[in-house]
Amino acid sequence: MKINGVEIEDTFAEGFPIKVARVLITAVTERWALEAAREATGFGTSVIGCPAEAGIECVAGGEETPDGRPGVYIQICNMSYKNLETSLLFRLGQCVLTAPTAAAYSGLPEAEKQFDSGKKLSFFGDGYQKTEELYGRTVWKIPIMSGQFIVEQSFGAVDGVAGGNFLILGQNQMAALTAAEATVNAIGKLKGSITPFPGGVVSSGSKVGSKYKFLKASTNAAFCTCLREDGVCTLAEDVSAVYEIVVNGVSYDAVKEAMRAGIRAACQVPGVLKISAANYEGKLGQHQFPLQQILE
Amino acid sequence: MKINGVEIEDTFAEGFPIKVARVLITAVTERWALEAAREATGFGTSVIGCPAEAGIECVAGGEETPDGRPGVYIQICNMSYKNLETSLLFRLGQCVLTAPTAAAYSGLPEAEKQFDSGKKLSFFGDGYQKTEELYGRTVWKIPIMSGQFIVEQSFGAVDGVAGGNFLILGQNQMAALTAAEATVNAIGKLKGSITPFPGGVVSSGSKVGSKYKFLKASTNAAFCTCLREDGVCTLAEDVSAVYEIVVNGVSYDAVKEAMRAGIRAACQVPGVLKISAANYEGKLGQHQFPLQQILE
Amino acid sequence: MKINGVEIEDTFAEGFPIKVARVLITAVTERWALEAAREATGFGTSVIGCPAEAGIECVAGGEETPDGRPGVYIQICNMSYKNLETSLLFRLGQCVLTAPTAAAYSGLPEAEKQFDSGKKLSFFGDGYQKTEELYGRTVWKIPIMSGQFIVEQSFGAVDGVAGGNFLILGQNQMAALTAAEATVNAIGKLKGSITPFPGGVVSSGSKVGSKYKFLKASTNAAFCTCLREDGVCTLAEDVSAVYEIVVNGVSYDAVKEAMRAGIRAACQVPGVLKISAANYEGKLGQHQFPLQQILE
Amino acid sequence: MKINGVEIEDTFAEGFPIKVARVLITAVTERWALEAAREATGFGTSVIGCPAEAGIECVAGGEETPDGRPGVYIQICNMSYKNLETSLLFRLGQCVLTAPTAAAYSGLPEAEKQFDSGKKLSFFGDGYQKTEELYGRTVWKIPIMSGQFIVEQSFGAVDGVAGGNFLILGQNQMAALTAAEATVNAIGKLKGSITPFPGGVVSSGSKVGSKYKFLKASTNAAFCTCLREDGVCTLAEDVSAVYEIVVNGVSYDAVKEAMRAGIRAACQVPGVLKISAANYEGKLGQHQFPLQQILE
Repeated sequence: MKINGVEIEDTFAEGFPIKVARVLITAVTERWALEAAREATGFGTSVIGCPAEAGIECVAGGEETPDGRPGVYIQICNMSYKNLETSLLFRLGQCVLTAPTAAAYSGLPEAEKQFDSGKKLSFFGDGYQKTEELYGRTVWKIPIMSGQFIVEQSFGAVDGVAGGNFLILGQNQMAALTAAEATVNAIGKLKGSITPFPGGVVSSGSKVGSKYKFLKASTNAAFCTCLREDGVCTLAEDVSAVYEIVVNGVSYDAVKEAMRAGIRAACQVPGVLKISAANYEGKLGQHQFPLQQILE
Repeated sequence: MKINGVEIEDTFAEGFPIKVARVLITAVTERWALEAAREATGFGTSVIGCPAEAGIECVAGGEETPDGRPGVYIQICNMSYKNLETSLLFRLGQCVLTAPTAAAYSGLPEAEKQFDSGKKLSFFGDGYQKTEELYGRTVWKIPIMSGQFIVEQSFGAVDGVAGGNFLILGQNQMAALTAAEATVNAIGKLKGSITPFPGGVVSSGSKVGSKYKFLKASTNAAFCTCLREDGVCTLAEDVSAVYEIVVNGVSYDAVKEAMRAGIRAACQVPGVLKISAANYEGKLGQHQFPLQQILE
Repeated sequence: MKINGVEIEDTFAEGFPIKVARVLITAVTERWALEAAREATGFGTSVIGCPAEAGIECVAGGEETPDGRPGVYIQICNMSYKNLETSLLFRLGQCVLTAPTAAAYSGLPEAEKQFDSGKKLSFFGDGYQKTEELYGRTVWKIPIMSGQFIVEQSFGAVDGVAGGNFLILGQNQMAALTAAEATVNAIGKLKGSITPFPGGVVSSGSKVGSKYKFLKASTNAAFCTCLREDGVCTLAEDVSAVYEIVVNGVSYDAVKEAMRAGIRAACQVPGVLKISAANYEGKLGQHQFPLQQILE
Repeated sequence: MKINGVEIEDTFAEGFPIKVARVLITAVTERWALEAAREATGFGTSVIGCPAEAGIECVAGGEETPDGRPGVYIQICNMSYKNLETSLLFRLGQCVLTAPTAAAYSGLPEAEKQFDSGKKLSFFGDGYQKTEELYGRTVWKIPIMSGQFIVEQSFGAVDGVAGGNFLILGQNQMAALTAAEATVNAIGKLKGSITPFPGGVVSSGSKVGSKYKFLKASTNAAFCTCLREDGVCTLAEDVSAVYEIVVNGVSYDAVKEAMRAGIRAACQVPGVLKISAANYEGKLGQHQFPLQQILE
C-alpha cells in the first residue's frame, strides 16, 4: 500500500489500556488558555518516568465552552484510576488554579467515572469558597488574589488507549522531523486524542528491556541508523532517521482517527520513505492498529 | 518611593534556599529547543504539589552554546540535592532525550556539586553508548532512532534561592495581568533566574496554613478583592486584582536583578497602582529582598 | 441591551463596499503556511495609505485543502477590481511564490469574477512552467530552486464589505486591549471575515476629514480620553481607553457573524464597560450593522 | 573550505546599494511590539514588486529602549531616499500608529540623513498634537482613542546594502529548509541586518531577465533540480533542493556579519551538502561578499 508514493508497511501498532481524564481549560484569551494547558501537561511524556502522560488535545472556540471564553482541551492519563485521581488533582491545583484567568471544566461530563477534584481544590478557598450551578454545571468559586477561580466540581474519566503509534522513516532527519510536525498539526485539529511527547514527537523510540537489568526500556537499536556499521540496524539503506509519533486517546476510535489523519499528513512531506509502527508481536498491548486497515 | 507614578511599598519579599540545577538544551532550531524546554519544565510551579520547580531561563544564541546550535537555558529546583538529582534525571530522560534533535549540556559546569546524570542516561544506549571529549566537555553519545543523543556526563547544581516575589496591584485584572506579562518579558532576557509559574505568573497567591488542618497553604484572603464585602480584604478600594510574580534563581543576586528588572517593567503599564511583596514577617525564609532598596 | 453586564449602545456600524479576493495558502506545516500568509497580508490595514487591505481569515486543516496539507485562508481587498487584480498579482508573486513550500489556491472557486493571476505568475517559470489538472483544479507548476510552486490558474473575487466595526470602551487601556485580543481569537475561528489591522486591532480610530486640508482623516477626538480636560472628549468619565475592531468580509453576513461573535467575546473580559460603533450617520457607507439587532 | 563537513563554494554574493531607515517600535509587551513590527514590514520582500523591502531586525529589551518597554527594531529599505521617505511615512502611519500601545523611535538617531516623518504623522492629531523632549529625544504626542501615540520627530536613514545572500544546497527540501530556519534564528539575534523574505527565506531564487521580454526576473533554472531531466539544472546529482537567504543591512559589515553567522548556523544542520551564493559575475552590484573570506 502506498500513499503519495510512500510505502505503508503491513504491520500494526500495539497500544494498551490507560485511564484518561479530559479537562477543558478556558481563559481570557486563547494564549492564556494555552499557557495553562502547557504547564498542566508538561513533564508528561510517558508513565515510565513521568508522574502521568499528558498532552494538549485541541483548541476550543468560545461557542463550545461553558463560559464562552477561548478554551483548550487537555488529557491527563495514568495506569490506574487511583493514580489518575492524584495526577488530576495536583496538575489542576498547581498548574491551572495558579494560571492567570484560567477556569477548569470537565471534558467528559457524561463519563461514568467521576472524580470530585473540583470540590477538593475548593478547600484552597479557606472557607470562602462557594458552590453554585453555572452554565448547567456544578462549579466551585474560589476567591483568589486576581479574582475568582471557577472549577467544575466533578471531572470525568474513561478507559482510554495509550501507545497508538507509527514510525516515520525519512531520507534524513529533517525530512522525518518536518513530517512529524505536519502530523502533529493534523492530529492537533482532532477531538479525543493527544500526542504526549515533546512537540508531539518521539526522537528516541525504545524497545522493552535492556542488557542492563535495572532498565525497563532501552533504545530500539534495530532502528538506529547510526548502528548500521555495527550490523545492528535492520532498516533499508536509504533510511537515515526515524521519528515516532505516539498517540493516546479517550477511545480506540479516537486513536485510530488520529493515526489515520497523522499518517496521511506525514505522507505529504517530501523525503518521507516509509511508514511503519512499533509493536511487541501482540504480546504486550491489548489494542492493535493495523496500519493498512486504518488507512483504507 | 514611586516609579513612573506607581508606589513601591516599603516592604520586602521573603525567599528561601533551594537547590538549583541549570541545563542548556540545544536543538536544530530555537523552536525545537523551546519545545524540549517547555516539556522539561512543565508541571513545575511549586514543590508544594509538583515534583520540582522548573522554568525556562532564557534563550541562548549559537555563539554561546557548545555545539553552535540555538539553545535554551532551563532551571530545575528542589529542596534537597537528593530530590534534585532525581528530578534532573527523570526530566532529562523523559523530556529532553525524547525531544527531537535536542542535546543537553550543563549550565553550571564550574559548580562544586555535580551529578552524573548524563552517564546514568547513557545506559539507555543498551551498550552502544560511547563517551568522548567534545567542545571541551565530556559527553555521551547515545544512539537513538532519529540519530544520536548527545548529553554531557555531569550536570552542576548550586545552592540557589526560591520565592523571590512581588505583587502587582492593578486597577483591574487585565492591567495587572498585562504588567505581569511585561515583567516576564523583562526577566526572560536575564541570565540566572526563572519565573516557574504558568506563563511566569501566579494568579492565586497563597498564605501559609489554612483553617483546614490537612492543607499547608490556602488563598491569601486578605489580598482577595472579591472578599471586600466580607470585610476580609485589606487592600485599598481602588485595587481590584493582584498578580504575583515568583522568581527562583541560582543566587541571591540573580533573583534580585530579576526583581529589579521585573518591577521596573511592570511600572510602565497603565493601570498598575502599586507594587508590594509577600513575606512571612521574616519567620519563614532566610533571604529578604527589600523592594525599595533593590530598586535604588 | 446588556451582555454579561456590558452595555451595547443603540447605534450602528457603517460599512462600505469593497472587492475581495480570497486565497488558500497551503504549506508543508501550518507554521510555514502562516509565514506566507503574514507576509502576503502585511502593510494592509487600510486603503487610505496601504496598497490594499488584507488579513488572515482562518486556519484550514488538511481535510479541507486541495493538497491535504495545512492551510491558511487570507483575504486581499481593494476598492476596484482593477486595483484588486494588481494587489493580488503582486502579493502572490512577491510573498507566496517566494515563501518556503507554499502553494496558492483560489478561496472562491465559484465566484463569477475570476482573475488569471496564476497564469500570469507562471511566466516566472521562463518557459519551463506547465499546466495540468490537479485536485480538480487547473493549476500551474512553476519550477523553483526549492522544488515546484503550484498555483491555481484563476482566483475568484466578490463584492464584499469593508469597515464593519465596533468600539470597545474600557475602564483602562489593558482591559480594552485584552478584550480586543479575545475578539480577534473569536473572529479568527470564523470563515469569511478578516480583521485587517495590526494584531486585528485599531488603536487610533479616525474621523473623516481634518482641520488640515491635506488630510482625509484624523484622530477621532471626541473619543480620545486624553482630551477630556480640553472639553473635547464626549465619553463617560469612567471610560479611559477605546479600541476599535474593524472587520472586512466576503459578504454582509460574514461581517455580521464576525461582529456578533467578536462583541460576545469582548463582553466576557472584565473591565469592559460598553460596546459602541463608528458611523457617519449613514452618509458614507451603504451597509449598516445595528449592534443590538445583530446580537439578538 | 569546509564547515562541519559542508563545502563552502569558492564564490561570492553580489549586493547592491539601498537606502535603509531603521525604526525602534516599543509596546506594552514584546508580543504587541512584534505585531506592530510584522504589519509594518509585511509585503516587503523585494523592490521588484513590493513598495519597499522590509523586515524585523531583532528584539530589544527594555534596558535599551527609550521608554523602558519591550521593543523590536525593524528596517525599511528603498532604492532612493525619496521613495524611502514615502515608504517610511506610510508604514509608520498605517501600521504603527494604528498598532495597540505602539510607539516609534528612530533606530538611527545619529545618521546624517533625517526624515521628519514623526512631525508629518503628528497632523493626524488634528491640532491636539504636542511636541516635547522625552527620554532625550524630540517626540510628538498624538491623542488617539486608546491613549496617546508617541513618535519621534525625526527618523534617520543611511546608505545600506541589499542583496547579501547565500544558497543552502540540501539533500532534500526539508534539510535545506530547516537549515534556513536555523540561519534565520542566528541572524535574528544580530543588530543591523534583516532577512526580508517570508519567514526570512527565499524559496524561488531568480536570475536577471527572462525569455519573456515583459519580465525583469525569472526562475533561476540552472538551480532548479526539477529541471534535471531537461538538462537545464547544473547542480550536482545529490542536491535536491536549494533555499536562498537574502540579507539587507545598514552597512557592508552588518550584512557580512549576518552572512557569517547564518552560514555557520546552516552548516550545523544534517542534510546540508553545500553553501553557495548568487552573483551576476560582478556586473550588477557594487558589493561583493566572498564566502570563504567572510568565514575566516
